Amino acid sequence: MRHPLQARLRAVLTGPTDSAHDAAHGDRVYRNALSIAADAEPVDDVVLICACYLHDLVTLPKNAPNRAEASRLSAEQAVPILRDLQLGEPQIYATQHAIIAHSFSAKVEPVTLEAKIVQDADRIDSLGAIGLARVFAVSGALNRPLFDGEDPFAQARPFDDSTYAIDHFHEKLLRLPETMQTQAGKALASSRAQVLRDYLRMLADELGHAAPDW
Amino acid sequence: MRHPLQARLRAVLTGPTDSAHDAAHGDRVYRNALSIAADAEPVDDVVLICACYLHDLVTLPKNAPNRAEASRLSAEQAVPILRDLQLGEPQIYATQHAIIAHSFSAKVEPVTLEAKIVQDADRIDSLGAIGLARVFAVSGALNRPLFDGEDPFAQARPFDDSTYAIDHFHEKLLRLPETMQTQAGKALASSRAQVLRDYLRMLADELGHAAPDW
Repeated sequence: MRHPLQARLRAVLTGPTDSAHDAAHGDRVYRNALSIAADAEPVDDVVLICACYLHDLVTLPKNAPNRAEASRLSAEQAVPILRDLQLGEPQIYATQHAIIAHSFSAKVEPVTLEAKIVQDADRIDSLGAIGLARVFAVSGALNRPLFDGEDPFAQARPFDDSTYAIDHFHEKLLRLPETMQTQAGKALASSRAQVLRDYLRMLADELGHAAPDW
Repeated sequence: MRHPLQARLRAVLTGPTDSAHDAAHGDRVYRNALSIAADAEPVDDVVLICACYLHDLVTLPKNAPNRAEASRLSAEQAVPILRDLQLGEPQIYATQHAIIAHSFSAKVEPVTLEAKIVQDADRIDSLGAIGLARVFAVSGALNRPLFDGEDPFAQARPFDDSTYAIDHFHEKLLRLPETMQTQAGKALASSRAQVLRDYLRMLADELGHAAPDW
């Protein structure tokens, strides 16, 4: 999966960042994107790799009031980097669109194939074995409990994923496959969502609770 | 698994604490202990439940220089609570021994069956589905990366579990089954360690690396 621009894009992401959005996240998103693109019509591989690595150039804390602006700020701050990498204006615009549209909270529909692939590839990184690690790391960083000790699967209380990591499986993660923009993305997301469901079943067993039917 | 003392012991743990050592951790350790005790000679169930809930009464950060003292401090601070619960001196001593000996860093060998069970039960909570959640939550809380993006399974570098969460699987978690004090604890630990190995295989697959043979 080597690309001539990859080393320079990774270098941009080596500054201080949280563990969910470091260069390794860029690597995984790009890897997912290549796997999806292999099944699709031809894409602009320069736009694809630049958007994969720079989509989280600006990250704001989960609880920041202006969090919805992060993807626009990332697109803005990507411009000098993209110029430096010798992209022309059309490729810069296309990369910016993919960066902005990847985010849930930006509420911008991806209209190019590259933007659709980047959005899918990024969401897939919230699923599977890597998604499990990320959801618990975020929860630990915010010093939130992993689950409600009394009612871990919210059978007798409202879901609350701003408090409990496990609630986030129901509120967001397991819904990701239905938001996929591409067929290959949907297939990959579904198999990675199954990893989370298998995990919930094991967790329920260890806690002595019935497994949730999420 | 209701015990007359359980509600009062849980109430002691409702203060501010990290998500790996809250009342739910006490519940799980007690649940593991009951499962191990069911296979063993009769135990003092009051000592067992008190040590399960109070073993982490004092927790110090992972990087605190006096971390080895935490289990002794827990045993000291447990005394007024145990008196309040009407335990006599022999039960208080036995509970204190189990609390002190549960810890790796205290370097005190557990000599009673209750202390052996508590040590096993606590270590088992670092394995399985719940152990996965805990290792990544701790890593996130310390703002450490989940793994080395270049070499996630340390094939060409020394292991370093003070930096990478995944290295902790090799350095500590997967070695826990061989430290078990009881037969039932060893069986439970081995099946929970297998959950971690299965996880590593899935993670390797997602990252495009060969699975480690840990």
